Amino acid sequence: MIILGIDPGLAIVGYGVIESVKGRVRMIDYGVINTPAGMRTPLRLQMIRKGMHMLFDRFKPDEIAVEELFFSNNKTTGINVAEARGVILVTAVEYCEKLFEYTPNQIKQAITGWGGADKKQMQEVVKQTLRLTAIPKPDDAADALAVALTHAQTNRFGSLFGM
Amino acid sequence: MIILGIDPGLAIVGYGVIESVKGRVRMIDYGVINTPAGMRTPLRLQMIRKGMHMLFDRFKPDEIAVEELFFSNNKTTGINVAEARGVILVTAVEYCEKLFEYTPNQIKQAITGWGGADKKQMQEVVKQTLRLTAIPKPDDAADALAVALTHAQTNRFGSLFGM
Repeated sequence: MIILGIDPGLAIVGYGVIESVKGRVRMIDYGVINTPAGMRTPLRLQMIRKGMHMLFDRFKPDEIAVEELFFSNNKTTGINVAEARGVILVTAVEYCEKLFEYTPNQIKQAITGWGGADKKQMQEVVKQTLRLTAIPKPDDAADALAVALTHAQTNRFGSLFGM
Repeated sequence: MIILGIDPGLAIVGYGVIESVKGRVRMIDYGVINTPAGMRTPLRLQMIRKGMHMLFDRFKPDEIAVEELFFSNNKTTGINVAEARGVILVTAVEYCEKLFEYTPNQIKQAITGWGGADKKQMQEVVKQTLRLTAIPKPDDAADALAVALTHAQTNRFGSLFGM
């Protein structure tokens, strides 16, 4: 099964693609969709939508996992990220009904077994779990791989218990 | 020229359609797109996207005006509205590049000439300007008509001054 993990944002959308077969995971690709700061928001949102379609065409994910918004103290950034996240969710659900959402705490818990883990610890576990030679860059891509891994793990325990 | 005004929301998207010809405005239609509270967010966003497409098909607007988010104190509601707004913006810009955004203050200023006007005063002016027999209900639809009127007025002064 191919899982696409998404870390939403307006300037940078992180994506991570993994394959999960009977509890074994491997990294297929990761990266980001960038949108230019000087461009009007509706056009940046359109670039994100097109970028998502390219990911679907290229990787044909079976399931998609998107990080939920942790509310930023910067209200303007929070609004922008939420607008981008709305576009990501609607584009994803049009492609595939197997769309899942995870909170930052669920992701930390799933990856490190501890809701209080920091970013560096998370990235180290992502690197080890996927047997990578280095921590994926930028952070948004590493976060997206963490979302995909969270879904692979949750899914696996779900099927073990017949959920 | 047909103008579609939109008041974004996840549970209720208000819309107002007006015709503006040489500074004369008339109401064509108004109403809301509702999404059920019990439904998952991605599916509610998809309903909003479909609802927008129906509005485009039915009214063929020449220009679209969308209210900007005033940040709510309720963070969860704020995120939901912003996610819906992202979907509205991307759906609108795919249909029509003539997409404009107005802040709540710009709308109050344009409609009543005073940024401190309350909702009741705004609705009264909308009713009078469009020669309606009653204040449009629900509030979301009245707000959407106010956004459309704001755009008609801004546009008119814009063209008077060659903007």
